[in-house]
Amino acid sequence: MRVHVALTPADASGLALAGWAAIAVDVLRATTTVVAACAAGCVRIIPVSDSGAARERAALFTAGEVLMAGERGGEPIPGFHLGNSPLEFTPERVRGRTILLTTTNGTAAMLGAGSAGAGAVAALTNVSAVAGWALAQGRDLAVLCSGDDGSFSLEDAVCAGLLVSDVASASHAELSDAAVAAVGLGRYYATRIGDLRHASRWARRLARKGHSADVDACLRRDVTDMVPVVEADAIVPGLAASAPPGTEGPRQTASCDVIGAVRAPTPPAQFPEGSPPTAGPQPRDVLRLAVRPGARFGRGAKPPGDPSR
Amino acid sequence: MRVHVALTPADASGLALAGWAAIAVDVLRATTTVVAACAAGCVRIIPVSDSGAARERAALFTAGEVLMAGERGGEPIPGFHLGNSPLEFTPERVRGRTILLTTTNGTAAMLGAGSAGAGAVAALTNVSAVAGWALAQGRDLAVLCSGDDGSFSLEDAVCAGLLVSDVASASHAELSDAAVAAVGLGRYYATRIGDLRHASRWARRLARKGHSADVDACLRRDVTDMVPVVEADAIVPGLAASAPPGTEGPRQTASCDVIGAVRAPTPPAQFPEGSPPTAGPQPRDVLRLAVRPGARFGRGAKPPGDPSR
Repeated sequence: MRVHVALTPADASGLALAGWAAIAVDVLRATTTVVAACAAGCVRIIPVSDSGAARERAALFTAGEVLMAGERGGEPIPGFHLGNSPLEFTPERVRGRTILLTTTNGTAAMLGAGSAGAGAVAALTNVSAVAGWALAQGRDLAVLCSGDDGSFSLEDAVCAGLLVSDVASASHAELSDAAVAAVGLGRYYATRIGDLRHASRWARRLARKGHSADVDACLRRDVTDMVPVVEADAIVPGLAASAPPGTEGPRQTASCDVIGAVRAPTPPAQFPEGSPPTAGPQPRDVLRLAVRPGARFGRGAKPPGDPSR
Repeated sequence: MRVHVALTPADASGLALAGWAAIAVDVLRATTTVVAACAAGCVRIIPVSDSGAARERAALFTAGEVLMAGERGGEPIPGFHLGNSPLEFTPERVRGRTILLTTTNGTAAMLGAGSAGAGAVAALTNVSAVAGWALAQGRDLAVLCSGDDGSFSLEDAVCAGLLVSDVASASHAELSDAAVAAVGLGRYYATRIGDLRHASRWARRLARKGHSADVDACLRRDVTDMVPVVEADAIVPGLAASAPPGTEGPRQTASCDVIGAVRAPTPPAQFPEGSPPTAGPQPRDVLRLAVRPGARFGRGAKPPGDPSR
């Protein structure tokens, strides 16, 4: 199993993820909100690019069936039913509803996960459950960090690292340099998640804007088993196939409300292209060879036997 | 003092570094080689884009005055005097010479450092000395990691983190998320630098290509005081202004050969634009506001009081 972490959107932009499992991460706050919405019993979340697209799409639904949600600049969008706070997505608000969600950073990563062979959504609140989901896929794994306006985001890298750490503990995994770095960060912050309130630029900014309760809600680890999975253009509630061996598992299981909305997880697929997980080129080689022509990772691409640097 | 680490070339591409101090890092092997060449008494190193540019430039020098050096794909370039192994750059080979150097990844970061208000070159072999140089500049600091064919490189991030850790220990520094992450990695690997032989993709590949001795030479910390500094289009030998307070300092001082080639370090400059180092917007804000129009960091730029996400 090969594991890569795209630390920024630019790192992810050149990856062709067909055959891979991909996981979108935007801890503050989009993917935490998606996890909360799925755990609260929504039918599906449809990521859309902006508020105009949300309104156009909403017009296709009957009244009461759909909710528009999201943020720009960390603030709610006028006329929308919900913002981007996970605390808003209660069963009373979202159960049985479709949610059209637009956010500044998280949307691209979630759409990116949708281009993979199997896609899911992770936050700190469900990270161990998603590790179990990833192991059950039997695919190479890419974790897509949403970042902060295109730049590296500490909390996303920490979440990716905790996820990869669980995966690597439970299977033979070949890690890219970025995955190794994320694991180091994940293990460092595992016992001090709360430090991210001050270490993360975006956490500090959200707090200054009066969203401290959101930050606190997002910086909790493993409060649910819920694994939102990407199907076509929508994210739907799923459940982890199994807790990863060697982890203590989620501290709180999904509620009965959630169980009612569950869909079966995607069945494990064959290892892409029949490659054995313990042989073949290094992770970065594979990613470089798999990129689309003209994409960033493709420049200067060489066969593994003739690397360039 | 604001401190940012560009973890990949893409992270650095949108930064306007006027007024900043910038430090180029390519541990395996370009900046380690530059440090070795300066410590061995070369006159200057001129980074050039490719072998053709090196040959054109060499024709402007008298025979014996200049050496062509570099690599492509980790291998020496036919007809060049030297490759990219720091072990080749001995006083016998390089003392009193100008070196034209072309490498796949390191050249861009070194040229990038040349666009800053003050530029220097760091490797693990001189990281504490460069931290002292950075503190003496009295400027905001950007560390430019060369990466691995455009992607994140573990050893460069670790080197950047050790450097920033020293700087942050000795002054009040506001760190970007990427700088915080690099510090975490630096502190994790500080006591296990040798682990990078196996954790770094490029270290493994160099070893497979028969360059294990180079990897060993590059993964040594603080073996010299030498701080190569960037002046116009060339890198020249300098020395650290002082060891950063709180560090034990280099384990071996520069040799007499080196002292003969020393130039005085750039004098400390005023804090750019008169901003006090303990106030003002957060590091990422500053970087976003400082980018060139149309550059990646500039998209969606907003004043600090009206942040977008």
